[in-house]
Amino acid sequence: MNGADGPFLAELGEWELIRRLSAYAPAGQFEDDAALLDGIATLVVNTDVLVENVHFSDATTSPFQVGWRAAAANLSDLAAMGCTAGRGLTVGLVAPGHTSWNWVEAMYAGLKACLNAYDGGELLGGDCSTGTQRLVSITALGSLDRTVHGHTTAIRRSVGQPGDHLVCTGHHGLSRLGLALLLNQRPKHELGQLPAQLRNAALRAHQEPRPRFDAVMALRQSRPPGISWRVAGTDTSDGLAAAATAIARASRCRALLDRSCLPIPPGMERMDCAETWCLAGGEDFELLLALDSAWADALMQQLPGCHLVGRLVAADGNEDSTGWLNSPEQFPMNVVGYSHFC
Amino acid sequence: MNGADGPFLAELGEWELIRRLSAYAPAGQFEDDAALLDGIATLVVNTDVLVENVHFSDATTSPFQVGWRAAAANLSDLAAMGCTAGRGLTVGLVAPGHTSWNWVEAMYAGLKACLNAYDGGELLGGDCSTGTQRLVSITALGSLDRTVHGHTTAIRRSVGQPGDHLVCTGHHGLSRLGLALLLNQRPKHELGQLPAQLRNAALRAHQEPRPRFDAVMALRQSRPPGISWRVAGTDTSDGLAAAATAIARASRCRALLDRSCLPIPPGMERMDCAETWCLAGGEDFELLLALDSAWADALMQQLPGCHLVGRLVAADGNEDSTGWLNSPEQFPMNVVGYSHFC
Repeated sequence: MNGADGPFLAELGEWELIRRLSAYAPAGQFEDDAALLDGIATLVVNTDVLVENVHFSDATTSPFQVGWRAAAANLSDLAAMGCTAGRGLTVGLVAPGHTSWNWVEAMYAGLKACLNAYDGGELLGGDCSTGTQRLVSITALGSLDRTVHGHTTAIRRSVGQPGDHLVCTGHHGLSRLGLALLLNQRPKHELGQLPAQLRNAALRAHQEPRPRFDAVMALRQSRPPGISWRVAGTDTSDGLAAAATAIARASRCRALLDRSCLPIPPGMERMDCAETWCLAGGEDFELLLALDSAWADALMQQLPGCHLVGRLVAADGNEDSTGWLNSPEQFPMNVVGYSHFC
Repeated sequence: MNGADGPFLAELGEWELIRRLSAYAPAGQFEDDAALLDGIATLVVNTDVLVENVHFSDATTSPFQVGWRAAAANLSDLAAMGCTAGRGLTVGLVAPGHTSWNWVEAMYAGLKACLNAYDGGELLGGDCSTGTQRLVSITALGSLDRTVHGHTTAIRRSVGQPGDHLVCTGHHGLSRLGLALLLNQRPKHELGQLPAQLRNAALRAHQEPRPRFDAVMALRQSRPPGISWRVAGTDTSDGLAAAATAIARASRCRALLDRSCLPIPPGMERMDCAETWCLAGGEDFELLLALDSAWADALMQQLPGCHLVGRLVAADGNEDSTGWLNSPEQFPMNVVGYSHFC
């Protein structure tokens, strides 16, 4: 019962489990009914659920990576709101009684490692329960303390305007390629021909993604004089096309994506699926931002690895969009992003 | 496929599900990657997970009541920290694709009804995913804005002192009795002899518990002049004995509970299990507070239905505790509270 995987949760019981988990939080953090956080001007709160065999599996993700991904996915949402760091997170852990403590320990170690690596804050508390399936439900908290002319520097999906340039951070499709490598979802010779550097980057993108707080910092630093704070954006966790659609819909615009300069990772262009995975692979946890063209240029100067991928146009306009992907109508149906339950 | 229970989640898909759920939140609340909350001096955050067949089941709880209980359990933790209202909550919903929309709709209606009934704030956002088992993971947010001499009016488990009186709100064991009534867990003649008023109160305590924000309000109003803010406390969701033990441990004291005046609901005394259910039935969502004796008296004057149930004593003292329950050593092993995974 107490072998290589350590004791089972059924042996530990809830109290001992919580005692062990408190090692990942500041001293005394788990002592009360809830956690306290001081001095928050504007609070940003986000909840993301990761379910076994839906969002992760033993075949593709170690327990350390489950924790890392869970933290990164939530911190990515904070970045997408304009935060440059997290204040911490709570974890709802559900697992069957036969789950080993070692699995839980490695998962929390991954979670904590991601928090530490990206200034994500502390483990603030949480709850745990038995259940038929392993899952983590994470609520991440961030704050927007700095103000520009009395306004918070929030990024909202709805504030895009026709003429805004669409800039994304990083390449897209990497995480999807990583999943394919882990599951051998493409012909062996095709995957084998890919450069080693690309394969490694793809695995890392899938297993240990990074929240782009650095991009929000660069966004703040690159704002040209005289341009007021107005940035529409979202993260690309559901795919680049879904992100463009979300911004366009919330801002009552259309998004045009330039098919000739999609941010496909170098070395992946030759794959048939490159465009689809770039647009709809999902889980890249990069940011897509719609902003004034001068600011977009300055941002791309400031932050290497950004890509100008398109622009917002008026919903009722007659723009010539030859060679462009017109959101949402002209995105192929299979690239509008991942939907659960279907 | 679209019968009396409404469409299944697999038919709706994630986006349509989220669109429908946004009706329970303020307009535009679900539009961004995360939610924003303005002007919080001290944030209180709590996460609670409710899992089907662990915390609720179709046999005992309607979907409306699942939502109500989930909200109430979380708001109760905010009350236990000293909040008099909630700022809102996020919901992580996991459910199999064959779950009907009507179940989800009724669950959110219950959640919203509880938020409205007890000034719990708004539905702020969340996430949903398919999974093998229905569950809700809720994170509730509250704030402590008012300060007394520059300090927040937080209730912390660790600030109890020897000599403090232990006061609980309400009767205990009611929720456990409600569960027994729903599952016919006791002999029919015994349950049948219980007064109708008690049976109704027990069902209500189990199915639609109330967070005790009113008790925190009374606590604030009853503080005698010259007594500074220092209140140890917790809610009794894990049982009265577990609550006393939690305060005693965190405050490095012992808790003595007076066996002769346990807060057993009137009419339940004749049941063999009355004392055990009162001490360890759990899920009563009342508050247990340790505070200065003068303040305890004033609180009981201010708030009818409070009970003086014991006191804190020095951990190494030689108090005569004849006739008292001495925490934790002298609590019967089966009354120290509910533990998952075992």
